[in-house]
Amino acid sequence: MSLEIITENRCFEGRQLRFRHRAETLDCDMHGAIYLPPQAAREPVPLLYWLSGLTCTDENFVQKAGAQRYAAEHGVAIVAPDTSPRGDDVPDDPEGSWDLGLGAGFYLNASQDPWQRHYRMYDYITDELPELLPEAFPVDPERSSIFGHSMGGHGALVIALHNPARYASVSAFAPIVAPTRCPWGEKAFSHYLGPDREAWKAYDSCELIAAGAPQLPMLIDQGEADNFLESQLKTELLEQACQENSYEATIRRHPGYDHSYYFIASFVGSHIGFHARALEQAAG
Amino acid sequence: MSLEIITENRCFEGRQLRFRHRAETLDCDMHGAIYLPPQAAREPVPLLYWLSGLTCTDENFVQKAGAQRYAAEHGVAIVAPDTSPRGDDVPDDPEGSWDLGLGAGFYLNASQDPWQRHYRMYDYITDELPELLPEAFPVDPERSSIFGHSMGGHGALVIALHNPARYASVSAFAPIVAPTRCPWGEKAFSHYLGPDREAWKAYDSCELIAAGAPQLPMLIDQGEADNFLESQLKTELLEQACQENSYEATIRRHPGYDHSYYFIASFVGSHIGFHARALEQAAG
Repeated sequence: MSLEIITENRCFEGRQLRFRHRAETLDCDMHGAIYLPPQAAREPVPLLYWLSGLTCTDENFVQKAGAQRYAAEHGVAIVAPDTSPRGDDVPDDPEGSWDLGLGAGFYLNASQDPWQRHYRMYDYITDELPELLPEAFPVDPERSSIFGHSMGGHGALVIALHNPARYASVSAFAPIVAPTRCPWGEKAFSHYLGPDREAWKAYDSCELIAAGAPQLPMLIDQGEADNFLESQLKTELLEQACQENSYEATIRRHPGYDHSYYFIASFVGSHIGFHARALEQAAG
Repeated sequence: MSLEIITENRCFEGRQLRFRHRAETLDCDMHGAIYLPPQAAREPVPLLYWLSGLTCTDENFVQKAGAQRYAAEHGVAIVAPDTSPRGDDVPDDPEGSWDLGLGAGFYLNASQDPWQRHYRMYDYITDELPELLPEAFPVDPERSSIFGHSMGGHGALVIALHNPARYASVSAFAPIVAPTRCPWGEKAFSHYLGPDREAWKAYDSCELIAAGAPQLPMLIDQGEADNFLESQLKTELLEQACQENSYEATIRRHPGYDHSYYFIASFVGSHIGFHARALEQAAG
């Protein structure tokens, strides 16, 4: 299981790396990006997982979020995986849409053909990367947190709610909080998971909270000028689930902000600070 | 002379705008980007001109430099023009290279055919935009500074050295300091300005300093792992010109940093702070 570094750029006195490896879980070659802060030159540092949204690759966050400054300040590494399996033999939506198939893995394990062989992003994020990354980089697997945007916000929330002992904290920008009740989620889940809607609930944050998922520190930011808020993101369903189940989460709504990386850049420092504090408490 | 705003994104409580207008100087339609910090909602703010490098458009800096945070902090607007005239009737390098023609205007006024009709970026930056922008946005034309990267670092230096009363300060990342003595500059100048090398000197920072250009606050950052340092950028020629002519400039060399936006992002906060202080002193 070899990992190859293909680019390296010095950034805020740390290292922005892009790597390539054979992903056993996904049965394909994958690219990924990791920022190692200057502190990582001396000792293993905590690791933040960033999960990107629909159509993204491992590169969008790295180039557009401006996160390296804060990662360097707080001494945390940030890994940005790709958003789906990749490669010529990986099936894509035959209709060529951008919300199913390549770039739209939804961070789940597919159970249906033709998807189930490669589309296992849940296992990739929760099993393969946590084993691979500490072997290749000076990161401490015992101190991890997770965050993401949109489809990746959904992924971060679902993964953290299923594994509260493995992540010190979770946060999301404009997450899809209830994929079983929005067009993006219904389309993807019906293809990846089949017609049985009961099986979908394992990948729906609101359902997991309603089913009694254990508490972990949770921060959500949502722009009120986000074009997808009403139709796809439905933040109010998460607010409702948290209230009904006494689940503590900080859910902030920001007037004027949209779904773009300009929104993420504006608040990513706040998120990284939130995770750094949770990781410090978890270690202490 | 109408200017149309085509996109707007809220960012760090300010506004990131992209605009389109008919550029009289360039005889073509142009795009540009401007960030207005939150302070601009109350009163006109100082204006920083950012000039990008070869192959860039108005979008690279805006998406990749992470500058908005610092602009919001210091209350300065940043305008990012495109790097050349654009459009179907604008001549390009017939050989299709990326260092001549579209995306490679070199911030000069061309004197040769077929370039001279459209390639007048010097006049565009120094005359047209300073007139246009305060009409369209709450920016104070009396408080301007200028900076840029690579070809745009060359542009910023040359424009500031020719117009020291109009810019409070100038800075550059990895600038082409002596285009009359490097392959990029020699190729571009021979096409745009013709064979008379005497005419080239008006667009060479080292030549302008040697000819006694007046002092203004100047900051240069150069990465020592920059692939273009030896062949094209030749920072040592600027160091030499400054020393020989008692021109005060802060020229910093940074081990490990390359020519990319990761380098720019790492130090752009330092540059914006430098300009903000100069702009405050100029106003005071």
